[in-house]
Amino acid sequence: MLSALIIGNEVLTAKVAEANGAHVLKRCRERGVEVQSVHFVRDDVDSIVEAIQLARRRVKFLITSGGVGPTHDDVTVRAVALALNREVVRLPEMEARIRSYYGDRPVPAEAMRMAEGPAGSTLLASEDVRFPVLECNGIFMLPGVPQLFRVQFEAVLERMPGRPLSLRQLYLSVGEADIAAALDAVALAKPNVQIGSYPTWDDAADHKVKLTIEHLSTEETASVVAELKQRLPAGSIVRED
Amino acid sequence: MLSALIIGNEVLTAKVAEANGAHVLKRCRERGVEVQSVHFVRDDVDSIVEAIQLARRRVKFLITSGGVGPTHDDVTVRAVALALNREVVRLPEMEARIRSYYGDRPVPAEAMRMAEGPAGSTLLASEDVRFPVLECNGIFMLPGVPQLFRVQFEAVLERMPGRPLSLRQLYLSVGEADIAAALDAVALAKPNVQIGSYPTWDDAADHKVKLTIEHLSTEETASVVAELKQRLPAGSIVRED
Repeated sequence: MLSALIIGNEVLTAKVAEANGAHVLKRCRERGVEVQSVHFVRDDVDSIVEAIQLARRRVKFLITSGGVGPTHDDVTVRAVALALNREVVRLPEMEARIRSYYGDRPVPAEAMRMAEGPAGSTLLASEDVRFPVLECNGIFMLPGVPQLFRVQFEAVLERMPGRPLSLRQLYLSVGEADIAAALDAVALAKPNVQIGSYPTWDDAADHKVKLTIEHLSTEETASVVAELKQRLPAGSIVRED
Repeated sequence: MLSALIIGNEVLTAKVAEANGAHVLKRCRERGVEVQSVHFVRDDVDSIVEAIQLARRRVKFLITSGGVGPTHDDVTVRAVALALNREVVRLPEMEARIRSYYGDRPVPAEAMRMAEGPAGSTLLASEDVRFPVLECNGIFMLPGVPQLFRVQFEAVLERMPGRPLSLRQLYLSVGEADIAAALDAVALAKPNVQIGSYPTWDDAADHKVKLTIEHLSTEETASVVAELKQRLPAGSIVRED
C-alpha cells in the first residue's frame, strides 16, 4: 500500500498536463500494489508537510513527484525533512555524482543543492537508473519530469510487495436504487471483498450499472459473484466478465 | 481559491480513467480561479473526513466528486457531515424531486438515500442543471459521473470569484543550476509573483528550461521579466511569449 504526492504549482494551474499520478495508478494496478491516495499540492513547504503527515498515518510508503531540482521552487527535500523532523544534510554519494557530472568544470553552488537530502536518506541504485532514487524512511523523492519519474518509479515498484487482484465484473440492466439492498447485504457479509457499483449515463450502453468485485483470492470473488447472482433482481445481469 | 476531493476506489485502482480532477484544473485556469490541491481518496469515511479537514484549513471552498449515489460505497454525504460535525438529514426539496421522478411508481427506500444531506445543506439551482448542486458550508458535493459532474461544476464556478492571471514565459538555453541564483534573487524581491522553472528532457527541444512568470497584474509580470533579463546569463533567452 502506498500513496503518491504530486508537487508543483504548474500542475495545479494546469500549465502542464500532469501524467505521473495516472502513471502511478496504472503501474500499481498492473503490479498488484494498492494505492491509498494521490494528492496534488502546491510548491509550498507547509502544504507539503501537512500532506506528508496525513498520508503517513495510513501508509508506510510515500512517493513524491517534483520539487527536487536546484531552483527556489524546489522545496520537497526540505518539506520531507521537516515532516520527519530531520535535518537537511549533504549526501556524499550524491555530491560525488554531481562532481563527476561536471568533470573539470566548476560546480555551481546551486547544483550542489541537488546533493542534499533529509538526514538518514539512502540512495537506491538500480541498473536501469542513471540517477539513484532518494529515499528516507519510506518516502521516495522522485523528479517530476515524466521520463525520469517513470524510470525511477520502476526501481521503487521492484521493492513493493504486490499481488494482482482477481477482478470480476457484472453488467446490470437495472439502476442503483434497485440493487442497493442486495449490495448492502453482500458487502456487509464480505467486508474484505471490494464491491464497486458504477452507473453509466451513456444511453447507448447495454447496461445501467457495472458492478466490480475484487479480492486477492479468486475463490472469494467467485463466492461473492454467486451470492450476488442469488440476490440481484431476476434477469438483471446483462453480461459478466 | 478552492480544493477538489475526488472520491472512489475505482479511481485509485485505475479501473476508470479519472477525468474530473483534470477538468477542475482546466476550467479553474480558464476562469482565473486558484486551485490549492486536488486529492484522490478511497471510498472510506475516515480517509474522506481527514482529507476534508486538511483541505478546509487552507481553503473556503471544496468540491467533492463521487460517492453521492444510493449504494453501500456512496459515503460522501456521511463523511462531509462528520467532518463538519453535523447530522445527516433528509432534505425536503430533494425528496420531492425524487418522488416526482418516480411518479406513480413506488420509491425504493434506497433511492431516498439520495435525498439526504448534512444538516444545513442548500441546493444550488441553475437553469442548466437538471439536478441542483448539494452544498453545505462551502463544500459542494458533486456526482462522479463526468457528464453530470461537468454540468454541476459550471454552476459552482459561476459562484467563485476569479480573475485570469497574466502569464509570461521565457525559454532558456542553459540549465537550472546556472540560473538558480538569479531566480532566487528575483523570487525573494517579488514574493507575490509566481515564478516557475521547468527543465525539459526532450533533446529535440529548442530550450533547456522554461520559466513561467504569473501575477494578476500585467505590470508586475512585465517588471519581473525585465528583472530576469538583467540577471540571467547573457544570451541565454532563446525565445519568449
